[in-house]
Amino acid sequence: METVLKDERLDNTGFGRLKIIQNPREFCYGVDAVILSDFAAGRARSGESIPGKRIRNAMDLGTGNGIIPLVLSHKTAIKEIYGLEVQESAYLRAKRNIAINDLSDRITIFKGDVADYMLKEGRELHGTFDMVLTNPPYVAKGGGIANHTGAKFIARQETTAGIEDFISTASKLLKDKGDFFMVHRPSRLADIVIAMHENSIEPKEMRFVSPNVHKAPNILLIHGVKGGGRELKILDPLYIYSPEGDYSEEINAIYER
Amino acid sequence: METVLKDERLDNTGFGRLKIIQNPREFCYGVDAVILSDFAAGRARSGESIPGKRIRNAMDLGTGNGIIPLVLSHKTAIKEIYGLEVQESAYLRAKRNIAINDLSDRITIFKGDVADYMLKEGRELHGTFDMVLTNPPYVAKGGGIANHTGAKFIARQETTAGIEDFISTASKLLKDKGDFFMVHRPSRLADIVIAMHENSIEPKEMRFVSPNVHKAPNILLIHGVKGGGRELKILDPLYIYSPEGDYSEEINAIYER
Repeated sequence: METVLKDERLDNTGFGRLKIIQNPREFCYGVDAVILSDFAAGRARSGESIPGKRIRNAMDLGTGNGIIPLVLSHKTAIKEIYGLEVQESAYLRAKRNIAINDLSDRITIFKGDVADYMLKEGRELHGTFDMVLTNPPYVAKGGGIANHTGAKFIARQETTAGIEDFISTASKLLKDKGDFFMVHRPSRLADIVIAMHENSIEPKEMRFVSPNVHKAPNILLIHGVKGGGRELKILDPLYIYSPEGDYSEEINAIYER
Repeated sequence: METVLKDERLDNTGFGRLKIIQNPREFCYGVDAVILSDFAAGRARSGESIPGKRIRNAMDLGTGNGIIPLVLSHKTAIKEIYGLEVQESAYLRAKRNIAINDLSDRITIFKGDVADYMLKEGRELHGTFDMVLTNPPYVAKGGGIANHTGAKFIARQETTAGIEDFISTASKLLKDKGDFFMVHRPSRLADIVIAMHENSIEPKEMRFVSPNVHKAPNILLIHGVKGGGRELKILDPLYIYSPEGDYSEEINAIYER
C-alpha cells in the first residue's frame, strides 16, 4: 500500500510503471530532471563519450524526490544508483518512492549536504563512481525572490550548496574518466565551466534547450569527463515545444523511451 | 589609383563603397569577420551592454587585410580604430586597404605579434581602449591539416599566438568596463571562458551561429566586459542560411546595414 501523506499526491511518471509521491507545496520535478536523465542515459547506453565504457554506478547529487534515480533505472541497466538529499522531508519521500517502485535493490538514498557529506560519512565513496548527475538549485545565493516555504526555498535556491560545491563533490566521487552530467541555466555557463576546470572535469558536450525555435535557450545540459581532454562539442539545440505549441517530437520521444 | 599586386584582387565589400584588396592564396575574409563586426557595432551604437557608454576607440587584434576596422568604420561612428597584424604581407595590404578607402584619419594599422607587441612597443596603449575585437586563428597549435603557404597557415592556425595571448592582450588594452568581442569555434568555448576569467574579462553575452536551424552551431560570438559582473546571457541563435538555402533575413540585414 502506498503511504501518501497529507499534502502529497501520487503521480504516474509515464516511464513504464514508475510512480512518484510528490508534495506540490515543497517541490515537483520538471522537464529539466527528465531531459538530464535522458541525456545521461543516452550516453550510458551507447557509451558514446568514451567507446567501450560501461557505467556500473551513478550518483545523483541533490536528488529531491528521487526522480533522477527512478528515471535512470527505467532508461538504463545501471546496477547501482544513489541519490543524496539534504532535506529531511524530501529524503524520506525519496526513500518511500524507491520502496513503492520495488527498486531498493538498485537505488539507495543518502541523507546529507552536498558539500559536507562527502567530506565526512561519504569519504569511502571518493573515486568510486562512473557517473555523477545533478539538477541543483538554479537561483544563486541572494538572487531571485525568496520562497515562503523552507523546502521550496532549499530546492530552488543555493542556500546550503552552490555550483562549486556540487561540482567539487562530483569530482571527488568520480573515477578518473568518469562522466559528469548537469542541468542548469545558461546564465550560469561561465561559472559552471570555470568550476569544472578548477575541479579537473573537462566540458565535453553542451546542449542548449529552448522553449521553441524562436526563443533563446533557458536550460543548459552539460556533460564533462573527469581528467578528459580539451574538446567541447555543442550539440544540436533541443526544443521543448513544436511551432504548434505541443511537445516537440524529441520531447515526446524522451518521455516514451 | 589602386595598387593591386600579382595574385591579388580588388573586391567590393558591399558595405557602402568600401573596397578591399585580398590575396586568395593567403587569406580572404569570411562571414565570421562580418558578423563579429556587426555584433560589436550593434553594441557600440546602442551602448546596450552598459547604458550610456560611448565607444571612442577600438582595437582589432590579428586584423589580417583590415576587414574588421573597415566594416566597423562603416557601421559605427567610432573615431579611432586600430588593427594589429603580425604578417608582413597582410599588414602592408591592410595599410593599402585603409589608403584606398580614404580612411587614414580613422584607421591605423600596427605591425606586431599579439603576445609580444603589447609588452614592448604597445605598452603606452595599456588601459586605453573602450573596445577590443578579435577573429583569431581557429585551429589549435598542432591541430588540423597544415596549410602549404605560410601566410594561410598563420592566419588559420595558432602558430604565433593562441587564445590565451589574444585574451590577455585584450585585457591589457581595455579600460575598466571596456568591451571585448571575439568570434571563434564553439569547440573552444571552455578554453575561451577560462582564459577570460583568468584575465578579468567576464562573459556577458554569447551567440551561437549555425548554418541553418537543423544544424549544430559552428561559430561562437562572445562579448565580455573587463571587470564586469557575473551574469551571462545566451542570445537567440543566428542562422546563416534560410531553409531554402539562401542567406537568412538576418544575414542579409547584417550585410545591408
